[in-house]
Amino acid sequence: MTSWVRDPAFARDQPFGPQTLPYGVVDAGDGPRVAVRLGEHALVLPSVAHDLGDLAPLVAGPSLDRLLAASRVEWSALRARLISLVTRSGTPAGAQLVPLTDVRMSLPFTVGDYVDFFSSRHHAENMGRIMRPGTEPLQPNWTHLPVGYHGRAGTVVVSGTDVERPHGQRRGKDGPHFGPSGRLDIEAEVGFVCGGPVARRVSTSSAPEHIFGVVLVNDWSARDIQGWEYVPLGPFLGKSFLTSVSAWVTPLDALAVARVKVPDVGHPRMPYLVEDSPWGLDLRLAVEWNDTVVARPMFAEMSFSCAQQLAHMTVNGASVRPGDLFASGTVSGPTQTQRGCFMELSWGGRDRIRLSDGSERTFLEDGDTVVISATAPGEDGSVVGIAPVEGTVLPAVDL
Amino acid sequence: MTSWVRDPAFARDQPFGPQTLPYGVVDAGDGPRVAVRLGEHALVLPSVAHDLGDLAPLVAGPSLDRLLAASRVEWSALRARLISLVTRSGTPAGAQLVPLTDVRMSLPFTVGDYVDFFSSRHHAENMGRIMRPGTEPLQPNWTHLPVGYHGRAGTVVVSGTDVERPHGQRRGKDGPHFGPSGRLDIEAEVGFVCGGPVARRVSTSSAPEHIFGVVLVNDWSARDIQGWEYVPLGPFLGKSFLTSVSAWVTPLDALAVARVKVPDVGHPRMPYLVEDSPWGLDLRLAVEWNDTVVARPMFAEMSFSCAQQLAHMTVNGASVRPGDLFASGTVSGPTQTQRGCFMELSWGGRDRIRLSDGSERTFLEDGDTVVISATAPGEDGSVVGIAPVEGTVLPAVDL
Repeated sequence: MTSWVRDPAFARDQPFGPQTLPYGVVDAGDGPRVAVRLGEHALVLPSVAHDLGDLAPLVAGPSLDRLLAASRVEWSALRARLISLVTRSGTPAGAQLVPLTDVRMSLPFTVGDYVDFFSSRHHAENMGRIMRPGTEPLQPNWTHLPVGYHGRAGTVVVSGTDVERPHGQRRGKDGPHFGPSGRLDIEAEVGFVCGGPVARRVSTSSAPEHIFGVVLVNDWSARDIQGWEYVPLGPFLGKSFLTSVSAWVTPLDALAVARVKVPDVGHPRMPYLVEDSPWGLDLRLAVEWNDTVVARPMFAEMSFSCAQQLAHMTVNGASVRPGDLFASGTVSGPTQTQRGCFMELSWGGRDRIRLSDGSERTFLEDGDTVVISATAPGEDGSVVGIAPVEGTVLPAVDL
Repeated sequence: MTSWVRDPAFARDQPFGPQTLPYGVVDAGDGPRVAVRLGEHALVLPSVAHDLGDLAPLVAGPSLDRLLAASRVEWSALRARLISLVTRSGTPAGAQLVPLTDVRMSLPFTVGDYVDFFSSRHHAENMGRIMRPGTEPLQPNWTHLPVGYHGRAGTVVVSGTDVERPHGQRRGKDGPHFGPSGRLDIEAEVGFVCGGPVARRVSTSSAPEHIFGVVLVNDWSARDIQGWEYVPLGPFLGKSFLTSVSAWVTPLDALAVARVKVPDVGHPRMPYLVEDSPWGLDLRLAVEWNDTVVARPMFAEMSFSCAQQLAHMTVNGASVRPGDLFASGTVSGPTQTQRGCFMELSWGGRDRIRLSDGSERTFLEDGDTVVISATAPGEDGSVVGIAPVEGTVLPAVDL
């Protein structure tokens, strides 16, 4: 039986086949509407409201907010209904299937709080070595808890948004200087989109009730601004100018086969961080700098899972609500070509990175484009895609 | 001419007389509605919609969100109309004036991003001496920029909300321990509520277009959790469990007389931090611990003004939007009785603080209540009030 969706990219051996079905918000000229991605097309969900029945109201609004505020039971029911709808042979009456080239994507949900973790041991060690040479690279707390901090929710933007080079203060020989950042960097991360009821103290085993799905995150970073400002209260303006996320949210349900155990940290985990089933994820990232793949970080290397991060974030009684977003921290592996930021790839600007056009880089230059993409193993040998996150650097504005 | 409002606390020599008129959200049994505070009463604004004319829609919703999204021109116009309304002799038709004892207050606005600064030199130096003894207490960046970080917007609550003692990891002799915080503290701060159009790169002179008003903030802090987690990315769970704000927002317009120059920092300010008119504020805080005033911090001691903080926060291109909240950081002065947190007052738990009932404290005990209040000079010798922020500590829950 062949699906009514005539798109060669909508196939089980393709990342956005029927095994994936990520949700996004498209505008085909008639305002923002919730859609699922089918290969290189978007199926506008209000157009098939009849087939979605009692679940149709969840996707009737201009964003995913109403869907996120529902529950895992409803998320799974909607997904089952969609799988059946997009794999059947007959075209659903009224179905609006639009090529992705004909739609404008918007940020798919209203971001509540945005938390950024730091859960790659390789990244933490490398950054320690580069930024605090001569000291122990890993802080004593690092193996015991997923170190993290709050970022700026109001500057989270959808993939494709340009990245204006930020201004700020940085260290100089004769005191701080002010001007455009000269060390603009990326951080390749995986983000988790929260949903379900407002909750406190979410156990690792309850994580699926509160994590709706997964995006890729580019946590653009101005290393010179960050290096001057970050003691003692952490990163602030070096990060807050922009954070980009995928336009499509891959449901957690699509990643069931990708689940793996996180690596050991060298001692038993605190009880509230113990998992009764593994929530590490075998996501394989690729970082493309002006069409050259410069790194292939492996998410399975991360030392804390999304369930552990969520349990930690709420163990003090803090609430989590639909639309909260938390990111993994830069995904870096043990080898040079697995490093998820240019600070590490260039070792603090010491080494040059060669691109396929023969040019060399340390940090981002104006006009550069970075695309982070990822796939995961799906059921029956299929491949599940996490939609790419992309951005192009614009020159600093004149102040 | 005597006002129709018969409340002895509604007088120019009282903090909530007609010179103040803070906005809040009250529920007198018929749902949340926007009100202004008149002495010990709340005037429910939809009840006088007729007198507010074309400005009535700004205060017609269940929160201040619509008012915040307006502009300074509208804020000033509404305030002028309200001053005239509450100082006239005849009772406006339909006016609903409710004793504060008969209403339930709610968080007056939807918090966008919450940023917490660190702009008291005395606090920064004291904390440096206590937490990093033997090192230079003030970091090299401190005098050059208002150090700050993002907090958790989703756990900002209205004054009066109980404070459950948080759990978390803390340093132990044989590695970290997990359990209820043993060093629960306060931070007495002043918060600025943003409004007006979404903006980037707000100059110090444009600050009044983007700051609607002022609240008091109690940035409850678990010092043992914070001390273990905060390197290298700053405070996280030690702060994110709860942050309390006043139930009433005092408009910036009410503080025109209170404006003062901020203290010198020992060198010229960077151009983007220069003010063409001063935005320091002469607010006098009082911290009451179970009915004993334990500190009287002076806000005029802060080294960075709200205009400088807002200019810094947006100079990198980050946007600010209505509902964003930024707090000053703990307000501490040069003397022992001007310290705005118990960490400083007890010098890291070394010294005991005696309360009027004869008991002694270092950090908060279950059942303790803290009230932070403040006044400022108003025009013609009047006193302007910032509504108090209050909270009572509940025991940690069993996990």
